Amino acid sequence: MGETEEVKLLGTWYSPVVLRVKIALRLKSINYDYIEEDLFGSKSELLLKLNPVYKKVPVLIHNNKPVSESLNIVEYIDETWNSSGPSILPYHPYDRALARFWSAFVDDKWFPTLIAATVTKSEEAKAKGMKEVGEGLLLLEDAFVSMSKGKPFFGGEAVGFMDICLGSFLVFLKARERLKGEKFLDESKTPCICKWADEFLSNDTVKNVVPQIDKVTKFIGEFEAKTQSTASKS
Amino acid sequence: MGETEEVKLLGTWYSPVVLRVKIALRLKSINYDYIEEDLFGSKSELLLKLNPVYKKVPVLIHNNKPVSESLNIVEYIDETWNSSGPSILPYHPYDRALARFWSAFVDDKWFPTLIAATVTKSEEAKAKGMKEVGEGLLLLEDAFVSMSKGKPFFGGEAVGFMDICLGSFLVFLKARERLKGEKFLDESKTPCICKWADEFLSNDTVKNVVPQIDKVTKFIGEFEAKTQSTASKS
Repeated sequence: MGETEEVKLLGTWYSPVVLRVKIALRLKSINYDYIEEDLFGSKSELLLKLNPVYKKVPVLIHNNKPVSESLNIVEYIDETWNSSGPSILPYHPYDRALARFWSAFVDDKWFPTLIAATVTKSEEAKAKGMKEVGEGLLLLEDAFVSMSKGKPFFGGEAVGFMDICLGSFLVFLKARERLKGEKFLDESKTPCICKWADEFLSNDTVKNVVPQIDKVTKFIGEFEAKTQSTASKS
Repeated sequence: MGETEEVKLLGTWYSPVVLRVKIALRLKSINYDYIEEDLFGSKSELLLKLNPVYKKVPVLIHNNKPVSESLNIVEYIDETWNSSGPSILPYHPYDRALARFWSAFVDDKWFPTLIAATVTKSEEAKAKGMKEVGEGLLLLEDAFVSMSKGKPFFGGEAVGFMDICLGSFLVFLKARERLKGEKFLDESKTPCICKWADEFLSNDTVKNVVPQIDKVTKFIGEFEAKTQSTASKS
């Protein structure tokens, strides 16, 4: 990286989508300044200025230019520092199309269903949502088999785009499991995804930037207590 | 394109998202077999087999391998036939990130809001939705100014990724305007987008594959009459 380059990341420590950017920057050995955003206070002037459309983290600021939306940032990092570190997207266009297709499935369909299932008060809606989450995992199990081609990651030998996308949610899933006993991953149903999840979380690059499960568990518990107490007051 | 290559496109003639793929294939001068899918009958075995997750067109089939989701297909076409015709995504990673950001805005936010505003029976919800559509267009006007850099298209001198994404909806907007008098584009508010829309629809590549506005207008009218009569019977 040229000495004149300036890289900053606006994030929150517990955010799965911010974690994606941290992993990508680490894979490419990019040094950067990290700015913690307090999303529970009022949003910073900087965030509102840099991401006026969504007002969300992560925002990557590279030489004063902002890039928003986590997977968009990961692609930007891969293309900007294409000669530093491993390629994050696969080499072949068809494999790239598969990685983009399944990462969009995770973000647009699978994870929103999972969130809806965790927050609903209706037992019936929860059961229906959790069933859909399980069905999504079966699809992801098949996707893993076809994309990994017998290697440990969706990206093959190394952590790639789809690993970063899905893997970024693993700490959240494990924290919910500890806190609420919700079991998302089941070895008898999706053995490959379960094995992959262990591989991902014990990967050196990932371990270095992933938030601690204990800390995230405590955070989710406190956050829920806070929002429930606010709701009961209103 | 090698003589052994086989390219097929599964689509419906009126679909804006199928149009995206047709434009991309035309830009790259790729010959292909087109298979019309009847989405109002039962979905074909082929569609269910090739896109089991969403069961939607378009599906591109390249040497027997399916690729789904329109913008994913457009990127696949750009990367697969990277030496045929113009590049569809911009060259510079930052410009590519902008194109991906704004195309996701169109697909995830702007167009769904527009569709919701056109189908709602509530006048209040319609007014609110149309206001949001207008606000989205103001954002797209700014995006156009920064991306086009004084040239006729988002992609500069030539039709590019974001032109294909947003432009694919223009015939639908014009058809709705004829049929219902809904005015989406307003020269006094978004002059650059209005000028761009005319440029896009009179572009030689686009003209060659875009469905006729009259035909789409008739189709939407018949489709609405059919769904309303079905609804009133139930």
